[in-house]
Amino acid sequence: MDTWRTAIVDAGPEHIRVRGHDVLELMRRSTFTDLIFLLHHDRLPSAAERRLVDAILIGVADHGAGAPSCAAARLAASGNRQSPAAAIAAGVLTIGDEHGGAGSGCMELIAAGLARVRTGGVSVETAAAQLVDEARSAQARLPGFGHRVHVAIDPRVDVLFTMAAESGLAGDGIRFARALEAAIRERIKPLPLNIDGALAAVLVDLGFPAMVGRLLFIIGRVAGLSAEVLEECTREKPMRIKIPVHYDGVAPVGSGR
Amino acid sequence: MDTWRTAIVDAGPEHIRVRGHDVLELMRRSTFTDLIFLLHHDRLPSAAERRLVDAILIGVADHGAGAPSCAAARLAASGNRQSPAAAIAAGVLTIGDEHGGAGSGCMELIAAGLARVRTGGVSVETAAAQLVDEARSAQARLPGFGHRVHVAIDPRVDVLFTMAAESGLAGDGIRFARALEAAIRERIKPLPLNIDGALAAVLVDLGFPAMVGRLLFIIGRVAGLSAEVLEECTREKPMRIKIPVHYDGVAPVGSGR
Amino acid sequence: MDTWRTAIVDAGPEHIRVRGHDVLELMRRSTFTDLIFLLHHDRLPSAAERRLVDAILIGVADHGAGAPSCAAARLAASGNRQSPAAAIAAGVLTIGDEHGGAGSGCMELIAAGLARVRTGGVSVETAAAQLVDEARSAQARLPGFGHRVHVAIDPRVDVLFTMAAESGLAGDGIRFARALEAAIRERIKPLPLNIDGALAAVLVDLGFPAMVGRLLFIIGRVAGLSAEVLEECTREKPMRIKIPVHYDGVAPVGSGR
Amino acid sequence: MDTWRTAIVDAGPEHIRVRGHDVLELMRRSTFTDLIFLLHHDRLPSAAERRLVDAILIGVADHGAGAPSCAAARLAASGNRQSPAAAIAAGVLTIGDEHGGAGSGCMELIAAGLARVRTGGVSVETAAAQLVDEARSAQARLPGFGHRVHVAIDPRVDVLFTMAAESGLAGDGIRFARALEAAIRERIKPLPLNIDGALAAVLVDLGFPAMVGRLLFIIGRVAGLSAEVLEECTREKPMRIKIPVHYDGVAPVGSGR
Repeated sequence: MDTWRTAIVDAGPEHIRVRGHDVLELMRRSTFTDLIFLLHHDRLPSAAERRLVDAILIGVADHGAGAPSCAAARLAASGNRQSPAAAIAAGVLTIGDEHGGAGSGCMELIAAGLARVRTGGVSVETAAAQLVDEARSAQARLPGFGHRVHVAIDPRVDVLFTMAAESGLAGDGIRFARALEAAIRERIKPLPLNIDGALAAVLVDLGFPAMVGRLLFIIGRVAGLSAEVLEECTREKPMRIKIPVHYDGVAPVGSGR
Repeated sequence: MDTWRTAIVDAGPEHIRVRGHDVLELMRRSTFTDLIFLLHHDRLPSAAERRLVDAILIGVADHGAGAPSCAAARLAASGNRQSPAAAIAAGVLTIGDEHGGAGSGCMELIAAGLARVRTGGVSVETAAAQLVDEARSAQARLPGFGHRVHVAIDPRVDVLFTMAAESGLAGDGIRFARALEAAIRERIKPLPLNIDGALAAVLVDLGFPAMVGRLLFIIGRVAGLSAEVLEECTREKPMRIKIPVHYDGVAPVGSGR
Repeated sequence: MDTWRTAIVDAGPEHIRVRGHDVLELMRRSTFTDLIFLLHHDRLPSAAERRLVDAILIGVADHGAGAPSCAAARLAASGNRQSPAAAIAAGVLTIGDEHGGAGSGCMELIAAGLARVRTGGVSVETAAAQLVDEARSAQARLPGFGHRVHVAIDPRVDVLFTMAAESGLAGDGIRFARALEAAIRERIKPLPLNIDGALAAVLVDLGFPAMVGRLLFIIGRVAGLSAEVLEECTREKPMRIKIPVHYDGVAPVGSGR
Repeated sequence: MDTWRTAIVDAGPEHIRVRGHDVLELMRRSTFTDLIFLLHHDRLPSAAERRLVDAILIGVADHGAGAPSCAAARLAASGNRQSPAAAIAAGVLTIGDEHGGAGSGCMELIAAGLARVRTGGVSVETAAAQLVDEARSAQARLPGFGHRVHVAIDPRVDVLFTMAAESGLAGDGIRFARALEAAIRERIKPLPLNIDGALAAVLVDLGFPAMVGRLLFIIGRVAGLSAEVLEECTREKPMRIKIPVHYDGVAPVGSGR
């Protein structure tokens, strides 16, 4: 079997180093968010960059026990008390394009738009309008906009963008996200940026690849799933969850075959 | 269906609050580790408490691509590129008593020992000796001691305990863990505290319930699994992993039945 | 890395053999249940043995969309349409001691009882009474008895035991399960055998190891989870599931820290 | 909360019916494969249809311990002995487009081609050639053709198609799959039908929706994963799997920050 290769962790019997940094030093001097940044980037973050990533992780960690991921984790914990890991994994498995996964798609959308600006010589507004029109023609969704719970503007978006601006980290990513929001409002209807779109814009400006949009959502959400599982196992009896179901299929079939 | 109940998150259309704290304020002023503490405890941590939890999460995040959890995540990503959540979940599912799960068991062991000290009037050393002898008779393992990779003392243990002592957070949990280590060395053989045992001792002193020993390992490890999945999807082709297998079962059976 | 070893499948570029049987011949002449038996045993089954395993798998496959495993699979499919595998896995993860997992525990209980009869020279009734008394003293549950939905006798139990008796496959496993049921009724209260206990008894008589009690439940249930996921993705919109949640934690905390 | 609706299982306290059929009758008279067909279709199968589905499930159940799904299940079982469900789920999570998931994509391809034949008045050969040319232009893969292990023709394909023909069940699905194979050989290179493409063709002719291509692969593979987990837990010690890893990232970084 080929030996596997990795540039992330060098784990010998005497040491563990993450992208060259000794874990013991990181334990003494850094934060978990510093490490999350280092694991997905090629260096430790500045203090301002770290605060932005902290804000993203906090923003997505737990949206209540009724969110699909939290509900699935609780259902799994309800039936399977021996493996908290299994319950958390069940919650993670609900994360896809429709739930928490729009961050990656939005990062790709923003990156595509900025590529057109750089290579095609068009303005940010023009590139945004083009992408919105193309999505409408293809009847494709625009990830990062609109929300099933917040009918109004998601206040977490402003918090993120203000923190970015105040620390000089707001760049073309945020600029393009706002341009997309304007183009959507003009050409389709008002669909404000949601938390996935906001974290996507910020992560583009921090230099992360698109997949990190979904990965950070998962890392943050796991903290919430963990707490939901702890509460389910602590406060509730096993198998307490009852879902009311109505059967609307065919009538009973005669007994013989 | 009964409405579910929760004391963790209050998520309305206008706000999200985590144990009473507004998420927007937490995004502006707190760190992800502050939130992790709050989600599993009943308050935000002091700065010293937060640094200890940071150190634990950093200590367990990634032990290299060959660790079972990381390897399983890479295998899943190798076959299933459409769902990073599925790959991370596969890694989480390898976490059990033998891999990363000893923290909870060790917290229960320490709690049992401290209960004997408080109610039984015995010394810490006596209670530790009793628990070690009982484990030997029952041929039960003592979670939190020994390690498959580090043949010597795990340096992460000292870093954690020194940080705890220097910030005045070292208490009976750490005291009892060291007493267990001494009793094991004396009555069985030298099996030094490992990272699971160390984080267990610290978490007891921070006032967490036993399940948190495993939950924090999962939260920390997910950060590493995420990076492993990102690297697998970025550097390697799909289906590149080959495991050499030797068949040692029965010979071919004749063709008819 | 050591080469892995296996006695189940010999997979070369020219052939695949399962415990010596050529897969092409199995495809032509056998049923999926024949293969399931062969995979977990050391031979193909007789026709009567196969019919019993068919009956077990059918009996556990799907207990309705509200069962925890089915509900979790639907929740996952609701949020994550790109990976049916992820949704089915989420359903599998709810299977533990409290949901579908009692079969293994009951097989171990029956095996322990039969061991006492063989080596201790006591009658089946005496061994059953001893095990029931010991469980009561230890306040341990007796897996395989009682049911949260069927308040009366589970009719699937009789179907299985009648099929076993009529084909001459009823043995000490079934005998001991009925003895346990009688001892429980006499010493605790009427807790009839449930489907997990019945399949456990049958599988003991078919010569399977205890873990197969849970494994067969999983194999059967996956067929139902698959259908539930198909229906969720076909009939319902993404993110349609709403769980009502009531927050009963602390009041809002003041804004400063 | 809205009551959920389902047309699959009617589960009352007195009965369980699957699409109108009483489970007790199915247990007495039917096979597990009959039930799998009924769960995903709208009726029980004929004997010939059932034999074809048996052959598909047998064909995909276990391709050896080194297949990504089997390897992931073993890795999970190596670290987590308490939850066989978690280990099987880890194996299921590796199933995606690249591993076992091509069946659905191929069913969609075949259905698209047959739609062109019906509505566009072109021959099967023409429609096949069009689809192959369009895939080449889009640089898209054609799911169901080629294989990483079998360099020659996969013998399972012929077994399936011969069984279908001999029982009068071979239809336009199989015809179109062979036409695609010819068009690929002519326009790209010889890439023979593989097992995913063959089961896709058969399932189209049996009247199943496209998702069933992947779902049946999962149902069949779970039987193999179960056996792999049983063997791993029975023959091997926990944490026995070692993966050799070579670190090729940056050199150690200086200690200060």
